[in-house]
Amino acid sequence: MTGTASSTANTFASLPEIEFWFDFGSNYSYLSVMRIDAQAEAHGVRILWRPFLLGPVFRDLGFDNSPFVLQEKKGAYVWRDMERQCRKYGLALTRPTVFPRAALLAMRVALLGADQPWMAPYCRKIMQLNFADDRDIGSAEVVKEALDELGLSAQQIIADAQNEANKLRLREQTSMAAGKGIFGAPTFFVGGEMFWGNDRLDDALEYCALAAPRG
Amino acid sequence: MTGTASSTANTFASLPEIEFWFDFGSNYSYLSVMRIDAQAEAHGVRILWRPFLLGPVFRDLGFDNSPFVLQEKKGAYVWRDMERQCRKYGLALTRPTVFPRAALLAMRVALLGADQPWMAPYCRKIMQLNFADDRDIGSAEVVKEALDELGLSAQQIIADAQNEANKLRLREQTSMAAGKGIFGAPTFFVGGEMFWGNDRLDDALEYCALAAPRG
Repeated sequence: MTGTASSTANTFASLPEIEFWFDFGSNYSYLSVMRIDAQAEAHGVRILWRPFLLGPVFRDLGFDNSPFVLQEKKGAYVWRDMERQCRKYGLALTRPTVFPRAALLAMRVALLGADQPWMAPYCRKIMQLNFADDRDIGSAEVVKEALDELGLSAQQIIADAQNEANKLRLREQTSMAAGKGIFGAPTFFVGGEMFWGNDRLDDALEYCALAAPRG
Repeated sequence: MTGTASSTANTFASLPEIEFWFDFGSNYSYLSVMRIDAQAEAHGVRILWRPFLLGPVFRDLGFDNSPFVLQEKKGAYVWRDMERQCRKYGLALTRPTVFPRAALLAMRVALLGADQPWMAPYCRKIMQLNFADDRDIGSAEVVKEALDELGLSAQQIIADAQNEANKLRLREQTSMAAGKGIFGAPTFFVGGEMFWGNDRLDDALEYCALAAPRG
């Protein structure tokens, strides 16, 4: 087992890495969460999952809500764009009846799970619940349901996610996002190189696979 | 000649059409202006050029400048993104020392030339002067120089562009942009379907070529 773990660690260490900064409430993060795992594997890239709270980042920038809510015309356009983008990627879409959905517990679980093998399927499940099934991912019941469906120990994970250290880490990671110059989600970093938006995921992965120094 | 003109008109009438709404001051419009002519031809699509003034549209939305100026972090990112995008498309880029550049005369000339065979090369020339050569495209001298280099009657065209009817038409076209829900540039329309940003040019052309009713 030690040998296996060590060889896995070595494999990881040799892969170029992409930081993936996202929030479950963000509609364009939905597109990236659903795509990134398969795309990163195809590019031989390791994902460093970086959940952060977009709300406080927006507030720091002087916005008290999503620009897609504050700017009516852009908001109207964005959902038409989402329909086309989802069709292009073969993703289901139901415009959430609440947008943007705060999902603090779900985000805390994501932070806890960032290095776990269940991270990618967990994130896809939460995003699907929000953007395809229009479920309230802000509720503990829905988060529990998601974890249950993945065969995980929902009660234990939720308890761990709610401990003070983990809550604090999410606030710190959110401050770190702001400090890195992040102003929206999804955002990708390859070293110091920043890529904003699902529209740049492919460019970011390509850059990462070709140009990034090996870890 | 009548026969030729008529057959050209018929060819145009049978091509699906994309509306291209842009402003010479807009950096992402630069990318589209440089690409659209060749891409549209490859897709068998006719371009309907729709120059409009982005400034008044922004002001209607409550912004007194480009979001890339008003939002410092986004602004910083945008120029890094532009560097990468220009490299990808093989375009030169010098960050303009004045941004966004008002280019009222150049825009009036564009409106005048929208159906002229010199429209595409004229727009590329103006954009190149702004975003590759950092020239003041707001000055009459630079506009004249662009027209001269294309072998056009600069003096006559500039005089026509400055007549009251043409000035009024540009204001009207700008109001029309706002009325269509445009909130940025470039924006493309295929019938009632709106596509925002250079990142959607390929999708818009594909949609136009495949799905648009024939004119």
